[in-house]
Amino acid sequence: MMRINLPRLKRDMEELGTIGRTPDGGVSRSSFGDADMEARRWLLARIAADELEARVDAAGNIFARWQPGVPAVMVGSHVDTVPNGGRFDGALGVLAGLECLRRIKEEGVRLHHPLELVAFTDEEGAFGGFFGSYAFTGILRTADIPNIRDSKRLRIVDAMARHGMDAMQAPAARRDPKEIRAYVELHIEQGPVLEFKKIQIGVVDAIVGIRRFGVTFHGRADHAGTTPMLDRKDALLGATDLIQKGRELVLAEGTPSSRLTVGVIRVKPGAANIVPAEASLTYELREVSGEVLQKLADRSRALADSVASSWGLKVSIETILDIEPVPLADEVKAAIAAATDELGLSHIRLPAMAGHDAQVVGRVAPAGMIFVPSKDGRSHSPLEFTSDEDVERGANVLLLTLLKLAVE
Amino acid sequence: MMRINLPRLKRDMEELGTIGRTPDGGVSRSSFGDADMEARRWLLARIAADELEARVDAAGNIFARWQPGVPAVMVGSHVDTVPNGGRFDGALGVLAGLECLRRIKEEGVRLHHPLELVAFTDEEGAFGGFFGSYAFTGILRTADIPNIRDSKRLRIVDAMARHGMDAMQAPAARRDPKEIRAYVELHIEQGPVLEFKKIQIGVVDAIVGIRRFGVTFHGRADHAGTTPMLDRKDALLGATDLIQKGRELVLAEGTPSSRLTVGVIRVKPGAANIVPAEASLTYELREVSGEVLQKLADRSRALADSVASSWGLKVSIETILDIEPVPLADEVKAAIAAATDELGLSHIRLPAMAGHDAQVVGRVAPAGMIFVPSKDGRSHSPLEFTSDEDVERGANVLLLTLLKLAVE
Repeated sequence: MMRINLPRLKRDMEELGTIGRTPDGGVSRSSFGDADMEARRWLLARIAADELEARVDAAGNIFARWQPGVPAVMVGSHVDTVPNGGRFDGALGVLAGLECLRRIKEEGVRLHHPLELVAFTDEEGAFGGFFGSYAFTGILRTADIPNIRDSKRLRIVDAMARHGMDAMQAPAARRDPKEIRAYVELHIEQGPVLEFKKIQIGVVDAIVGIRRFGVTFHGRADHAGTTPMLDRKDALLGATDLIQKGRELVLAEGTPSSRLTVGVIRVKPGAANIVPAEASLTYELREVSGEVLQKLADRSRALADSVASSWGLKVSIETILDIEPVPLADEVKAAIAAATDELGLSHIRLPAMAGHDAQVVGRVAPAGMIFVPSKDGRSHSPLEFTSDEDVERGANVLLLTLLKLAVE
Repeated sequence: MMRINLPRLKRDMEELGTIGRTPDGGVSRSSFGDADMEARRWLLARIAADELEARVDAAGNIFARWQPGVPAVMVGSHVDTVPNGGRFDGALGVLAGLECLRRIKEEGVRLHHPLELVAFTDEEGAFGGFFGSYAFTGILRTADIPNIRDSKRLRIVDAMARHGMDAMQAPAARRDPKEIRAYVELHIEQGPVLEFKKIQIGVVDAIVGIRRFGVTFHGRADHAGTTPMLDRKDALLGATDLIQKGRELVLAEGTPSSRLTVGVIRVKPGAANIVPAEASLTYELREVSGEVLQKLADRSRALADSVASSWGLKVSIETILDIEPVPLADEVKAAIAAATDELGLSHIRLPAMAGHDAQVVGRVAPAGMIFVPSKDGRSHSPLEFTSDEDVERGANVLLLTLLKLAVE
């Protein structure tokens, strides 16, 4: 049975891991920043050195191809990172994919479908996330491009122009779904499940949907001394009550894959001796079942209303993000599971709770994801780590999966 | 029976109310800002026009005196305001006091004790609060003065130097307590009690103590999707639980004068898709009984510890402000109550829940406060309002109280 070349893959991981390295051992490669551009040049040079066909599309997505024709079996992920992120998130999927193409090329395997590696632009969201895969799948609308900015208000149009790219042309990167036989992404789990259960491989069942609300409670600013506690309209009491009761709601009515996160909270006027007139928070639900997600969202809105009225407050709720869950393709899951069995590895099915390019590609073509364990579940952090053994196992599962999809 | 001249007092209130006027009808006179300096000049000119002896001490406190000698019966408040505050807070006490001196002078009343009006510097806290009364009572320490800054980090040393004053000399403003027969302050209630109960005059029993803590819960930043809810160390869950349970604690174990206010809350890292690693809040207790205040503070600390451990968090607590409650002098309270009765006005005893210069002077000399109703209890706001009738009643109670203390 064919196997990947671990030393070669490790060397690639190490080289890419030096680009955008931070003092505490993380990496910072925000899209179209200097380190991301250096990583792009490095990847193109590596593809060329491996004598594969390299290409950059109108959205800045980077491709390597082995064999011509359509439809292609695709493999990939991204090389951009969050600020001070880890060396595995994204990079593993791209470099293990490249290693698979190299091995298949080296072995002279006769393919029914060509293989294509892709590194998508801005998965992590310097400019909102998924710019590359949105363009590739035709979801990106030309009219929206001028409004896409990073957190410093830099437009993606200007960021790409600095490097001679025209963001307005990105929709030309769209690929006809009929040209995509399947898309497979190897990724670290970014969670604790595989490590905790001592399972080697995760076959991703579905990619989480996200419903993110901005909730603002409106009360009345009052003097902290002169206004009796029972006469107040304290916006923060509504917010804190929603945070506690929302958690109980999601634990009681959700599934094990349901998540509620309140990561931002702000009060106005924000003085120690003034009762808060306004309290705003982000209320983010994640769930892999679209039906459950909708139920939790509806119940949460009703809860916010009842909490507000019980404290004598008004509440306003806006939807900030609405991403439907994406079930992954049965045939790809079956290929991954079969590859795992052939390698004698343990596996479980589990949901992907973070966003991935596979959820975007999965809307138009059969997609699948392979997870390997993350030490302590840590990710988006310099502490992100996956062992050599787990990297090797995941890359071999990816190799066999690609062979099944491209040869059989 | 002698009465104040309401039209004259109203004219003074209106004139002072134009200094630092804001577009929505409030006033902004932060200490040593342009409007505060203009108000100081206006007050000194008015004192001179009334042919009273004017004086400014080393802390910038402004005095007007009628008759020489010691000990003096003092009356006063402050002319500085919070940003966009009201026209009555502070100004009423100073200008009604001035009117009392004028009337007593006009009537040629023979006094056993001289009368002295004072407008204390920075009661409202542009530079932390009570700079003038702390200097006057000897509480201000020279070593602390270089560290006193406003919210823009401007040192009071530099702010006063701009106007030719030397902040380092402020402790020279100390007055020997033996020279103070009594201190009386007329003030708007800044709360709803008198209006709600339809009572004309409040005789202040005691001035609230304040214990303000900075509480920080320490947890762990985790990914909003990949980390199951039950595996998190979410600092915001500790903070919100403390806010809710702290309120229940204070309602259950405090008195009707107990207050808990959480006016500031912040989370880190503060992103919608990251579980908060840190949540900080201000936890401010107010209570007029020192014993109850201590009990609530102790129970709150214990509560924060138990909340933290129940959520798997660490908590750190620092004391930001610690002001003991100040009981007011029985003889001054008795004089105020007798004055109220002579005028045929209704009165109740009630605590002052905000800080006042009387709480500082009350530490070294007999002090008392007279409250008049505040419309809707509003204060520190352009909506602050007290009717002409209530202003007149309060000023007449002040006049009779001063006469009782200075003549009898």
